[in-house]
Amino acid sequence: MTRILAHYHIGGVAADIEARAAALALEQSIEMPLTAVASRYVRDEVVARVANIRALGPALHEVTLAIATATVGRDIGQLMNMLFGNCSLQDDVVLHDVELPATLLSHWRGPRHGLAGLRTLVGAGPRALTMTALKPQGLPATELAQLAATFADAGIDIIKDDHGIADQDYAPFAARVVACQQAVARANAARGGHSVYAPTLSGGPRQLAAQAHIVREEGVRMVLACPLLMGLPVFDELLRHELDCAVLAHPALGGAARIAPPLLFGKLFRMLGADATVFPNHGGRFSYSPATCQALAQAALAPWHDYAPCAPVPAGGMSVERVAEMLDFYGRDVILLIGGALLAAGDALPARAREFVSRVHAATL
Amino acid sequence: MTRILAHYHIGGVAADIEARAAALALEQSIEMPLTAVASRYVRDEVVARVANIRALGPALHEVTLAIATATVGRDIGQLMNMLFGNCSLQDDVVLHDVELPATLLSHWRGPRHGLAGLRTLVGAGPRALTMTALKPQGLPATELAQLAATFADAGIDIIKDDHGIADQDYAPFAARVVACQQAVARANAARGGHSVYAPTLSGGPRQLAAQAHIVREEGVRMVLACPLLMGLPVFDELLRHELDCAVLAHPALGGAARIAPPLLFGKLFRMLGADATVFPNHGGRFSYSPATCQALAQAALAPWHDYAPCAPVPAGGMSVERVAEMLDFYGRDVILLIGGALLAAGDALPARAREFVSRVHAATL
Repeated sequence: MTRILAHYHIGGVAADIEARAAALALEQSIEMPLTAVASRYVRDEVVARVANIRALGPALHEVTLAIATATVGRDIGQLMNMLFGNCSLQDDVVLHDVELPATLLSHWRGPRHGLAGLRTLVGAGPRALTMTALKPQGLPATELAQLAATFADAGIDIIKDDHGIADQDYAPFAARVVACQQAVARANAARGGHSVYAPTLSGGPRQLAAQAHIVREEGVRMVLACPLLMGLPVFDELLRHELDCAVLAHPALGGAARIAPPLLFGKLFRMLGADATVFPNHGGRFSYSPATCQALAQAALAPWHDYAPCAPVPAGGMSVERVAEMLDFYGRDVILLIGGALLAAGDALPARAREFVSRVHAATL
Repeated sequence: MTRILAHYHIGGVAADIEARAAALALEQSIEMPLTAVASRYVRDEVVARVANIRALGPALHEVTLAIATATVGRDIGQLMNMLFGNCSLQDDVVLHDVELPATLLSHWRGPRHGLAGLRTLVGAGPRALTMTALKPQGLPATELAQLAATFADAGIDIIKDDHGIADQDYAPFAARVVACQQAVARANAARGGHSVYAPTLSGGPRQLAAQAHIVREEGVRMVLACPLLMGLPVFDELLRHELDCAVLAHPALGGAARIAPPLLFGKLFRMLGADATVFPNHGGRFSYSPATCQALAQAALAPWHDYAPCAPVPAGGMSVERVAEMLDFYGRDVILLIGGALLAAGDALPARAREFVSRVHAATL
């Protein structure tokens, strides 16, 4: 029987770690005392096992559990349940990484477009891609569309809705998508460009299905989705059944400090099919370290199963001035996302947006 | 225009707190510099405002934001996005509590059965209710059904699937629900009891719809659902469109974000319609303090909008020995959930289950 290897970082002293690891194995499988289990099958094939314990520091250990694949079935919600359902409530435990058997990985397709598909989509060679966001929320669809046209004129590859833009009365999804998609198409036609508009999907399954219908009808080629706001099983079904276009994942609500960001935003989002994954870059408004960002980008890009590479999108308070430094750090397999810093230029926005584009193109030609 | 009041606890020194609060207000609304916003409407009606700042300690402050209700629409995912989407990624921020305007609260019905409805369902007067769990996962449906019958014979009010039991090959949902529901019905008929079986729902929207169909067909009167595994918007739609029976919410995966447990498991689950809410009791396998447990129970029970009270279900390593102490602590508006400690009794399980029931009945008659 195949096993999932789940690596946890657990705080506490060395004297307790074996008992703590054994307790974790029960918590994340049968949730009852082993002595009370009569079934041989359950003891041998269902109970999670402690596969390894190693010290990471005086009061920190890595505990690796071997979790039976049969407990998961093929459900991403149940996978998260077995990995971190109950022990998420124990504040000494961090879910650090996971190794899934190929039989389970094969249930998901990973990115359908991936980094290579995104480059084709926007007509780019092997350079870094550029992205910006339409904001602030509160503007009517017509003004967001005007802004989208300005960004497309400047040659920015991907123009996404701000992740806070949902289906509010001031810019309802249907009207907004039609207006922005057409504005970008017109700008593309005028300058021979290939900019792509990516609206934000939101709501429950019924609303999402209606939005996916509009996306298909309007020929939208990329969307933004927040997997943790909608729920991972919904994100999974959406990509499996409703969407063929490219998908950009946003980390909202994912600050799940206790699931390692490279695992959650790098591996798991990629496995479910995100073609690009937004995350907080170091040195911005968020607290990720350079090492975390590097590990996350690697998790999104590195060879894994037969999944296409997923484009890393470092973001959160980035500026045009940081373009060169970010390309040094990430290389060219990256999408640079600058939002507010472009808008802060006011009347100089078109020039600022063109400068963003030309710096990226120049640096990675 | 109405506002949502969101209370955050923010670490850091007092000298920085005003700038930090102002930054949080932008992060959780327009996510761009205020100086770059030309629209008067956006500045006045969309941008979140800092409503209050107060010191909680030398390096801890409560910041209250007034968030525009229009930014939310009527979508629970978008509500979570506006409350904690981006700032969940900032590890100095905890979402402590929320005050929602009545116009927004009215969009949700709260518990349809609530504590009073659960008491009626199991034929109980104003006493504490008893609950246990079918486990371990890995047993076939027939053995789980046998166990359910034993618990029903003992007079336990609510017999739920373990939250790790999903739709695995060893006990598929459909076969399991039929077997357990019938076993409990037969036991009820034999002793004139009113025990209720609550199966665990799992999967994405399509699988959940199929499971809800089985639930209705089989006359199941209560289900267990994990709102954070399935996603809050799915939980919302499930209760709105698919289920009339009572709903027990389980906190799996909920410890991952820094949202105060009384808010998440008390208020928000109740708002969405949980009739009972499971949470880790103090002194068990989890780390909640007595004060947190008390606050959570109060959030579930206290008068709020026109929502029915939601039954608190303290759990996680509880034992029959703790019944009296727990009833002292929670009073009789509670459901006591003991799982593994009953199963640990082995052959004495029926006696142990009867003792659980009689202790609760005696203490609260």
